[in-house]
Amino acid sequence: MLTTDHGDVPTPVFMPVGTQGAVKAVEPRELEELGAAIILGNTYHLYLRPGTRILQGAGGLHRFMAWNRPILTDSGGYQVFSLSDLRGLSEEGVEFRSHIDGSPHRLTPEGAVDIQRTLGSDIMMVLDECPPYPCDEEYASRSMNLSLRWARRCKERADSTVPLYGSGQALFGIIQGSTIDRLREASTRGLVDIGFDGYAIGGLSVGEPASEMYRITELCTAAMPVNQPRYLMGVGTPENILESIDRGIDMFDCVLPTRNGRNALFFSRSGRVNIRNARYEDDFGPIDPECACYTCRTFSRAYLRHLFKAREIAGLQLASIHNLSFYCWLTRSAREAILAGRYHAWKTAMLQSLNGMDEQTPLTHVGGDSAS
Amino acid sequence: MLTTDHGDVPTPVFMPVGTQGAVKAVEPRELEELGAAIILGNTYHLYLRPGTRILQGAGGLHRFMAWNRPILTDSGGYQVFSLSDLRGLSEEGVEFRSHIDGSPHRLTPEGAVDIQRTLGSDIMMVLDECPPYPCDEEYASRSMNLSLRWARRCKERADSTVPLYGSGQALFGIIQGSTIDRLREASTRGLVDIGFDGYAIGGLSVGEPASEMYRITELCTAAMPVNQPRYLMGVGTPENILESIDRGIDMFDCVLPTRNGRNALFFSRSGRVNIRNARYEDDFGPIDPECACYTCRTFSRAYLRHLFKAREIAGLQLASIHNLSFYCWLTRSAREAILAGRYHAWKTAMLQSLNGMDEQTPLTHVGGDSAS
Repeated sequence: MLTTDHGDVPTPVFMPVGTQGAVKAVEPRELEELGAAIILGNTYHLYLRPGTRILQGAGGLHRFMAWNRPILTDSGGYQVFSLSDLRGLSEEGVEFRSHIDGSPHRLTPEGAVDIQRTLGSDIMMVLDECPPYPCDEEYASRSMNLSLRWARRCKERADSTVPLYGSGQALFGIIQGSTIDRLREASTRGLVDIGFDGYAIGGLSVGEPASEMYRITELCTAAMPVNQPRYLMGVGTPENILESIDRGIDMFDCVLPTRNGRNALFFSRSGRVNIRNARYEDDFGPIDPECACYTCRTFSRAYLRHLFKAREIAGLQLASIHNLSFYCWLTRSAREAILAGRYHAWKTAMLQSLNGMDEQTPLTHVGGDSAS
Repeated sequence: MLTTDHGDVPTPVFMPVGTQGAVKAVEPRELEELGAAIILGNTYHLYLRPGTRILQGAGGLHRFMAWNRPILTDSGGYQVFSLSDLRGLSEEGVEFRSHIDGSPHRLTPEGAVDIQRTLGSDIMMVLDECPPYPCDEEYASRSMNLSLRWARRCKERADSTVPLYGSGQALFGIIQGSTIDRLREASTRGLVDIGFDGYAIGGLSVGEPASEMYRITELCTAAMPVNQPRYLMGVGTPENILESIDRGIDMFDCVLPTRNGRNALFFSRSGRVNIRNARYEDDFGPIDPECACYTCRTFSRAYLRHLFKAREIAGLQLASIHNLSFYCWLTRSAREAILAGRYHAWKTAMLQSLNGMDEQTPLTHVGGDSAS
């Protein structure tokens, strides 16, 4: 159980991604209804637009976007390295140009904490450098050590500043080191020595094989404190999530349910449903008969298919609601199975079930969250 | 009060447009919440996609789209003449090619009723020819007389068929005759002689000056039976609606609130708000402090502006919810003022109020409803 001033979060938990202060095509009241206990905000995007002046004027991100449950914000590092026009990386921080208007900006570890203070998120993340994959050992080592020094500076900044809106803000460290065991171990050890409220594994789900992801995850969680939250960033498919829970992960975020939903792909307990498939043309049953979400309670596959064929915005809304419901249900059910002491049996049965139906439909998943 | 098997509709009433079996960016439960008493469906679009086989399989449009309140369907005539590739117009009906895939189709007055039986709408409309504006008297006269003969055939078809799903279906006639008084009078008289459940005025809001629209509306309503509903098709701005209520109109439909909403324009009691305007950047008040809709209860102008600047789908959703709420509130308030015997005073004050703020912002309003 993760405790914040905006409420408790039972783990394992899936965090819907609200990159720009909005989860795409889903209203905050709908996020509450579908069982989202915590959502993600993106520091890079919110810093560039609407900007910290407006966010501070609103009284923080919670009030700005009308979301009263917990928010985790990433540090912006991932987007600086993947979206912006990177102009310079130094010990001090990064210089980049905005992907929106090309304006020049600088982000330092201290600045990342300051921005997150302005956002008022319940969980802040340290600034890290995200190396590409694959990455040679020398680069990975230098990068990991830089991230470690930045993590320390973030911690010092967080310790010497206070929240702006009266509610507490935790700070998580981020483990880097590519897929090189000794670097991951050193990164984990270094962060634990500094001491954070929780530990995240960054730099995975960037193109490496799933087996590598699981191996590194296992290696990192083994070296983390047992009573602090563990967050695997940007992961992943339902299968990835169940396997990573098994390896000790508590928190997940991914654009996969919303992005694929907007692309007509629905997740269900018995596998993926590509609703554009002609077989659903006059299928008047719900996407998932066991799902309690608004979409499944109310609409048929035939109707949802029609919405996508007719390019109706409602299709994006109803698919996003369903897929997020499914992901939140999945991690909630994992928790129940863990508490009942039957996680492995449950996981095995669930993985089998998840591989039914249109399993061949490829997922859309290119890196982390972007504005589009 | 309009009585249907799916519930009563207090008039005057604004009907949100659900062209393709969905009101753009608004869920059915949200339409109920915002006070929509009846919505519109489009026969041309639904006939082409998903098609009558699927709609009949679903048990009609109400069940297909999960809307349990009344539905009015237009006949498809307007879209055949404005959207399709028209291939031939004859006494028998129209031949056209689908705007979606170019496939050939034929629509007759009898066919229009048959399709609407399949849709199961509470109110069906007769098939009419929609002449262009402006239009010479000879063309307008021939066209009006053809529409009148088609109206009789629709009536005969409706009289000789029964609803498919057990709930009653009314049939409305449509007055044509361009802006030529004697043709409008003859059309009204001819339709009243045939005898319909209600009367609509078609062929207005197609580019003529507002003064012409009001003159023709007045002329038509004067010749309509007093105890049957009167529907002004495709109208219009808040001002148009208040003026037309004054001239005896009970029912309105228009894409203006949703289409303009998707274009960042919000209606309010004190005028239009173009939310892209920089003056709203750090305006943390609601769009309309007197509005009870979800958008105004929950979000600030600054946040809504951010959503549009960031191209978030939620902006389209929240603007559509607000604008439809506003239109439904406007006609509800008109009803209250009428029942209280103070319509003129209320209208005068409201028109003055509506002209505040960003009134200069042009509205997006090109003809009737299309798929986009």
